[in-house]
Amino acid sequence: MTLHPSVAAVRLPVRAALSGLSAGDVVAVACSGGADSLALASAAVFEGHKRDLRVVGVTVDHGLQPGSAAQADRVVAQLAALGVDETLTARVTVDAVSGLGPEAAAREARYAVLEEVASHLGARTVLLGHTLDDQAETVLLGLARGSGGRSLQGMRPGFGVFARPLLGVRRTDTLTACLVEGIEPWDDPHNHDPGYTRVRVRDRVLPVLEAELGPRITEALARTADQLREDTALLDLLAVEVLAEVSRDGGLDVATLGARPPALRHRVVHRAALDAGAPASELTRDHVLEVDKLLVGWRGQKWIDLPGHLRAVRRDGLLVVEAR
Amino acid sequence: MTLHPSVAAVRLPVRAALSGLSAGDVVAVACSGGADSLALASAAVFEGHKRDLRVVGVTVDHGLQPGSAAQADRVVAQLAALGVDETLTARVTVDAVSGLGPEAAAREARYAVLEEVASHLGARTVLLGHTLDDQAETVLLGLARGSGGRSLQGMRPGFGVFARPLLGVRRTDTLTACLVEGIEPWDDPHNHDPGYTRVRVRDRVLPVLEAELGPRITEALARTADQLREDTALLDLLAVEVLAEVSRDGGLDVATLGARPPALRHRVVHRAALDAGAPASELTRDHVLEVDKLLVGWRGQKWIDLPGHLRAVRRDGLLVVEAR
Repeated sequence: MTLHPSVAAVRLPVRAALSGLSAGDVVAVACSGGADSLALASAAVFEGHKRDLRVVGVTVDHGLQPGSAAQADRVVAQLAALGVDETLTARVTVDAVSGLGPEAAAREARYAVLEEVASHLGARTVLLGHTLDDQAETVLLGLARGSGGRSLQGMRPGFGVFARPLLGVRRTDTLTACLVEGIEPWDDPHNHDPGYTRVRVRDRVLPVLEAELGPRITEALARTADQLREDTALLDLLAVEVLAEVSRDGGLDVATLGARPPALRHRVVHRAALDAGAPASELTRDHVLEVDKLLVGWRGQKWIDLPGHLRAVRRDGLLVVEAR
Repeated sequence: MTLHPSVAAVRLPVRAALSGLSAGDVVAVACSGGADSLALASAAVFEGHKRDLRVVGVTVDHGLQPGSAAQADRVVAQLAALGVDETLTARVTVDAVSGLGPEAAAREARYAVLEEVASHLGARTVLLGHTLDDQAETVLLGLARGSGGRSLQGMRPGFGVFARPLLGVRRTDTLTACLVEGIEPWDDPHNHDPGYTRVRVRDRVLPVLEAELGPRITEALARTADQLREDTALLDLLAVEVLAEVSRDGGLDVATLGARPPALRHRVVHRAALDAGAPASELTRDHVLEVDKLLVGWRGQKWIDLPGHLRAVRRDGLLVVEAR
């Protein structure tokens, strides 16, 4: 019997993700019951058990929708049928006063509880089911924010205990893999609610881009994210070095910083404003460019107002970000 | 009489572009007869004559369409009515065997002839009418190529003798400025031919992005291009330094280059392949990543085939790009 290409497409990167683990190690799989995470769980069971790993499913119940507990129970039963060694249900409450939007708050809460569960299980890694399509959507959402390379980086393939082995796999492959393996994924009604920008990107924007620019646009978006992640990592590192170098007497040395290239100057100014307490969501490129003029286009401007009741001032050869 | 905001929106950046010129200097305005370049020409006449500049229109006749000579004559008459001091018509023939696509070949030929005319006129600057909308379209076209920051840089605000003062002005403002000033722009039928990817981006992709992600997406795309242009300038410069540092004995020192961050390694490999004669249009990120594995993931791979009948080989501590 030949392995179906979609099943192979899902298993291959999962195998790579587990290649560093040893017999007896625990791998956790976050599973919502959607096609992506069920296909991921199935591949993790297959590849994990070949290496004598303990494969534990984790499903998170946000309790935000009626019937969410029943859906969690359904996922537990599906994961058991797939052959996981155990499944944990983590119940979280989303902190509505965290200052994040509801989607971001739910995401933060989900990662926090997954991290706790991973620590409790002693898991070496927690697999997340994000696909190439999710990555392309993330890049387009970032494009709408228009804050350059930083907003186009997409999702990282791994961070902390988390790994995203399916970031190079198309969503259609996870759907087909489920079909081939007789798994019935849950179709979250939220995934079709056009009130979410991500849903509109998925259902209305990406299909138009594929039709007009060619079907390879999804891969192109993901590839762009990969390259920009590398670039941003280096530029951020260089900016941290410059920031350390120009910091003195509670400010930034104008002469030294002003001689740096724009890519680093702008990052240092951005960083200094954040460090002084400017809210990231309100600090724009236009703010940064105005502050930059205090460095390289100074004609006696008094100060630049910044969000968070701050202002940037040039004083005694220093750029200072201070309370208004 | 109050100045119409659209006329002001076009004049303001043109004034800034001419601020360094002195009485008697020549400014050339490239004009196709479309709304963007007619609005630009009108603003250049107004702002230029205030500074006692000599304002010369230049229209390029590619001779590719029937009636193109008549259209050029129409532009000459329109520019005369706007008050330019003189208009030159430059006739160019597009070299079909240049290895470029027909659009790129026409563009190259146009810039070459504009440069010649500028030199003949002794023009200090040649104004081009590209708008914020053109910039957003260019970014989206780059996104479809998926080659990271480089392909998302959009158009430069200036290069050589050329300046693009309208890169921050919406196309609707140039149209409105023409209407307000009684100028009748020419509607190039090419601008509606869906055979051109750029036309599909303009007519089908950007409207969907604006509807689903918000009307500020066009500005966001242009802002992204601005930031990525800065980032790419610095990273390219650093890569040139690394390339010089690691070059020895006709190859690249593996130990030194392998210790550099991915953003610079990948650029150096890309540059080395281009320098060896790989065609830019065929050299992909996947090629670069495969060659990079010779540096940092070497398990005895023999060589990596590259376009242009080249291959990359690791030999005696050197990475060499050579003929196959």
